[in-house]
Amino acid sequence: MTVTAFAPAHITGFFSTIFDHDPVKAGSVGCGLCLEAGVMARVTTSTTGSGALIRLNGEPKDLPTVTYVVESLPGTRHSGLVIDLTADVPLGYGFGVSGAAALATALAVNTDPGQGLTMEQVAVVAHCADVVNRTGMGDVAGQFTGGLVIRIVAGAPGVGVVEKVPVDNMEVSWVCLGEISTSLVLDDKKNMERINILGQRALKAMLKRPGVEHFMSLSRDFAFETGLVSPGVADAIEAVEASGGMASMAMLGDTVFALGDGSALMEFGPVGSSRIGTTGAHIL
Amino acid sequence: MTVTAFAPAHITGFFSTIFDHDPVKAGSVGCGLCLEAGVMARVTTSTTGSGALIRLNGEPKDLPTVTYVVESLPGTRHSGLVIDLTADVPLGYGFGVSGAAALATALAVNTDPGQGLTMEQVAVVAHCADVVNRTGMGDVAGQFTGGLVIRIVAGAPGVGVVEKVPVDNMEVSWVCLGEISTSLVLDDKKNMERINILGQRALKAMLKRPGVEHFMSLSRDFAFETGLVSPGVADAIEAVEASGGMASMAMLGDTVFALGDGSALMEFGPVGSSRIGTTGAHIL
Repeated sequence: MTVTAFAPAHITGFFSTIFDHDPVKAGSVGCGLCLEAGVMARVTTSTTGSGALIRLNGEPKDLPTVTYVVESLPGTRHSGLVIDLTADVPLGYGFGVSGAAALATALAVNTDPGQGLTMEQVAVVAHCADVVNRTGMGDVAGQFTGGLVIRIVAGAPGVGVVEKVPVDNMEVSWVCLGEISTSLVLDDKKNMERINILGQRALKAMLKRPGVEHFMSLSRDFAFETGLVSPGVADAIEAVEASGGMASMAMLGDTVFALGDGSALMEFGPVGSSRIGTTGAHIL
Repeated sequence: MTVTAFAPAHITGFFSTIFDHDPVKAGSVGCGLCLEAGVMARVTTSTTGSGALIRLNGEPKDLPTVTYVVESLPGTRHSGLVIDLTADVPLGYGFGVSGAAALATALAVNTDPGQGLTMEQVAVVAHCADVVNRTGMGDVAGQFTGGLVIRIVAGAPGVGVVEKVPVDNMEVSWVCLGEISTSLVLDDKKNMERINILGQRALKAMLKRPGVEHFMSLSRDFAFETGLVSPGVADAIEAVEASGGMASMAMLGDTVFALGDGSALMEFGPVGSSRIGTTGAHIL
């Protein structure tokens, strides 16, 4: 039996981490943008064999969030699974690929008849996979919802609280300059204190006037004020602004994203693009 | 400026009403199915003129839920509005058209720049429109989410709690036998007591084993045990079952819906059909 599910890429603009011993309630508040680009999980279940083979874009890959999902969901332990993930965006550059891979896998595995979990219940497992592995704190909540998502109360889908900002499916472009390890940033306790204060301030401002351009400008200020921007990221953001556009940094990747076709980004490397995806993760 | 938004039709299978003086928290718990069929609202705003002209499928129509939305949302009072609604399903037959019209209108009106409300905030207004006019108690919560939706905590989107049941976009068919006034049923206090007990019982069972076929059988038992089925509805449900299918009654309309192509319904009248719509209300 083969089932395919999709979860969108999610670019966080600003965030503030929320600590809780229970990973279901832990995570982050903040705001991020889902894309039509994302991760597709094609899961084949066989009654013979055991364990899971995970491939990302055709290559075997150790993805801790996907392993966590496979080990946590009922009904997957006594059958062999082949999980073929296709990602439109790179891993480690701030697109929430770890969370999207976990969420798409969880949704695909769950359509196996008789498991009897709701979509929120399986999304909880994907959220915990992301949080426990310190690969993402709020991506799954955004990806489950779709669109431009404000995360007001941290936690897994159905537990945390989100609000969707009305938004056209306009084009978003990006250039990836380097990888950032989310867990290394989270482990820097002193810097995180400052990040959390700035993230809460941006959230408050966003809730007063929700809109995509306001999201971009709050994200930009957050990126600079937290000191998370690298010199390369700062250059690329300023190049977009010099051409009259809006850009910021994908949290957490050494990646710049911009509204529109991103022509001003081309001097910095290969430009990727996608429309904003207003639909949350779903079974195909 | 013209903006178009869509909200899916929503067929409630079983429900239990929840009373609250605050319409935001009032509504119903239960379970219902969203369709790809629904209501499209095309809203044209002009800076001259005032008031709102509401048309349903080309004809001027007094729709209290839409009027409520227009009068409640900020920024609509000082401009002229033309609201053209196109419904794929009939009003008054248990498809949640009152709620869908209110929700699609609210989303379309809200894209007017500068209003600055999230999608949940405008959906709250549509939910209140439905509840206050006693045209529906939980349709908007289902329609905002899309798919097969269990409403666990009553109330408007962002306030009530829902869970989505994983479901293919299979075909659903229906035959409409007559109209039912939702408010007349709600006003029958004694019968509502019994309905509410049976609705809570079905909800509990659904949560233990969420799935589309379980939804159909719980809905069917609810329809008969509450006594809401008319003789015509009972005949049509039994005809579908005799052909090996599953059917129940759309709450609250004198309408039978069935999984599949509904060939067994054809002897009872013109058969409509749609796939299950897994996407919630959205701007087009």
